[in-house]
Amino acid sequence: MVNDLNAGHALARLETPAPLVDLDRMERNITRMAGYARQHGIALRPHIKTHKSQRVAAQQIAAGAVGLTCATPAEAVVMSAVCNDLLLAYPPVGAKAERLLSVPPSVRVTVSLDSARAIDDLALVARRSDREIGVYVEVDVGMHRVGVPTVDGAIALARHVRASAPLQFAGVAFYPGHIRSTVASQDGELATLTADIGRMLVAFDRAGLPPAIVSGGSTPTMWRTHEMIGVTEMRPGTYVYNDRTTAEIGACSWDDCAFSVLATVVSTAVPGQAVIDAGAKALGREPMRGASGEGFGALLDRPDVVVARMSEEHGILDLSRTDWRPSVGDLVRVVPNHVCIVVHLNDLMYGVRGDRVDTSWPVDARGRSHPVVTA
Amino acid sequence: MVNDLNAGHALARLETPAPLVDLDRMERNITRMAGYARQHGIALRPHIKTHKSQRVAAQQIAAGAVGLTCATPAEAVVMSAVCNDLLLAYPPVGAKAERLLSVPPSVRVTVSLDSARAIDDLALVARRSDREIGVYVEVDVGMHRVGVPTVDGAIALARHVRASAPLQFAGVAFYPGHIRSTVASQDGELATLTADIGRMLVAFDRAGLPPAIVSGGSTPTMWRTHEMIGVTEMRPGTYVYNDRTTAEIGACSWDDCAFSVLATVVSTAVPGQAVIDAGAKALGREPMRGASGEGFGALLDRPDVVVARMSEEHGILDLSRTDWRPSVGDLVRVVPNHVCIVVHLNDLMYGVRGDRVDTSWPVDARGRSHPVVTA
Repeated sequence: MVNDLNAGHALARLETPAPLVDLDRMERNITRMAGYARQHGIALRPHIKTHKSQRVAAQQIAAGAVGLTCATPAEAVVMSAVCNDLLLAYPPVGAKAERLLSVPPSVRVTVSLDSARAIDDLALVARRSDREIGVYVEVDVGMHRVGVPTVDGAIALARHVRASAPLQFAGVAFYPGHIRSTVASQDGELATLTADIGRMLVAFDRAGLPPAIVSGGSTPTMWRTHEMIGVTEMRPGTYVYNDRTTAEIGACSWDDCAFSVLATVVSTAVPGQAVIDAGAKALGREPMRGASGEGFGALLDRPDVVVARMSEEHGILDLSRTDWRPSVGDLVRVVPNHVCIVVHLNDLMYGVRGDRVDTSWPVDARGRSHPVVTA
Repeated sequence: MVNDLNAGHALARLETPAPLVDLDRMERNITRMAGYARQHGIALRPHIKTHKSQRVAAQQIAAGAVGLTCATPAEAVVMSAVCNDLLLAYPPVGAKAERLLSVPPSVRVTVSLDSARAIDDLALVARRSDREIGVYVEVDVGMHRVGVPTVDGAIALARHVRASAPLQFAGVAFYPGHIRSTVASQDGELATLTADIGRMLVAFDRAGLPPAIVSGGSTPTMWRTHEMIGVTEMRPGTYVYNDRTTAEIGACSWDDCAFSVLATVVSTAVPGQAVIDAGAKALGREPMRGASGEGFGALLDRPDVVVARMSEEHGILDLSRTDWRPSVGDLVRVVPNHVCIVVHLNDLMYGVRGDRVDTSWPVDARGRSHPVVTA
């Protein structure tokens, strides 16, 4: 087994680029979020998009999560091995919907969606598998990505769900990805959102459709979910590892960043820079959203050194703000801008404590290509 | 076998997002490039970074390629199953160098590098495996990424190689990634480059180190490699599939784009846009370099419709320049900005002819995480 080979080695034995998870930090992040949810009586349903790992998911559940959130039916199938209560926070339209037939009947499944077509596709699957499937109606609270834009439209979809047995109307979901209210100075956005949610809930109540669950929150707002009156469930993902963006917006500290990419300095031939063997294929090309930071990642122990440019396999470290001058062969650890994208690039994570590789685990739900479903 | 399940199905049976390769276009691209190299007497050594597939590599060799180019030792190990002449166009510094021990002795290996440290690491590996390894000295011709910036420095490294048996000085390599001379109006850049290369070759000759091979070229300049006097070998990668950037810069036509991502429209809830299930985890977040195009991809049969924004699993189609109004459930094919990054996201490619899935194959050299090498 690959896993056994990987234990007990020093970082210098790893082929770079290699994705590292600081186990102490990850465990602290999982415990802290579970504690926050427990303290405020909010159901915690972590989104597995960040780690895509059965092992990490099991740790989240052991810490108190009520279930898991997935983005694709294939992810739900993988996570059904470790969890019996799954939310698919994405409409499984078309051929993909049939993948849900592979989720064991013992697993409770809920789906959030925003169209009549998605309801009809899902109802077909529910009937074929003779199972109840819960449905959240997704509403747009201002991000303008998905979600029904009007309360009347959302209520109409909820009625459509009610008329589509064995589907069950289970609640409403929203994603305030446009709000950056991690700090008090941006309270206004959060207050407006809370008022909008309140009006929506009143309208649902009056229509005879009180939502049992109100599922909301985002990474920037994750520690303020309790201020959104009416929200009963949160679905944070990034918190398990955190990243440069999460730290930049103030939703975690730099010391909470549990994930880094180990890279080797491979060239110092061009003055004023150093080239590492982690480029876009190892770090992703994600911007620092909503923040002033430049570059595609920063060194874990030298946050003033950023990956300023990238090719597929080259990352260019900008040395203009540091006296540090690395040599070819030196190892560095890069905290990426957006960890979810980077984990998705890898088959295997290395769990480290200090400078030792303690363990490794597969990114179980990474794969994107599936055999054709033969109906 | 997964491959057998995938043959003979209509596109609508695929779970989206799904990476498609138009086999007719790919075969035409392979044949055209082989013909160009043959016509001009340039050795063709395709870079496998674009497809990472043994099967596609074998087709390139069958069409006349003299060998293959790889970016990592792990890619070289995978490609050694189908090719006995490999160039590693990247310095294997540190633990990674030992991976070359897994390339069978019958395979000729050449490495391009730009530092004394890389020469020393490689010499250790060559001695341990009792094999000759050829070395190209990489020179910087203006891109300022890697490569020795001065001719004197390059000659010094070539001497270092000569003194490091069983390494063999095999030639010089360069990558003019900064030049966009696909069109006649930019001839000046190409002329300057050709003059610089000429001066360098004269200097190497005078130093008693005439390079047997001069390995150069890039995707933008690929059809003009024969104008770079002295170049004996080219290493194009992207040409096998092409992409939106390659078409935009004029190095291929839109009809030469063999790769697309099949996606499903999952939401039209927000007016003026349609949401597809291909986001940054399916398309990458690559800009249109050196071109005016916006967005992260364009529809194969409607190039005026671009993926204007993305989340991890959402792509937002901008419908402002079209009368087309898709419905939830509709299928679209997206040509990404940079195909190499997108292939790297997938485990499996689907080969299609027209609207039928003809075959599928693994992206053999995709994986980034390897077991620890025990020395």
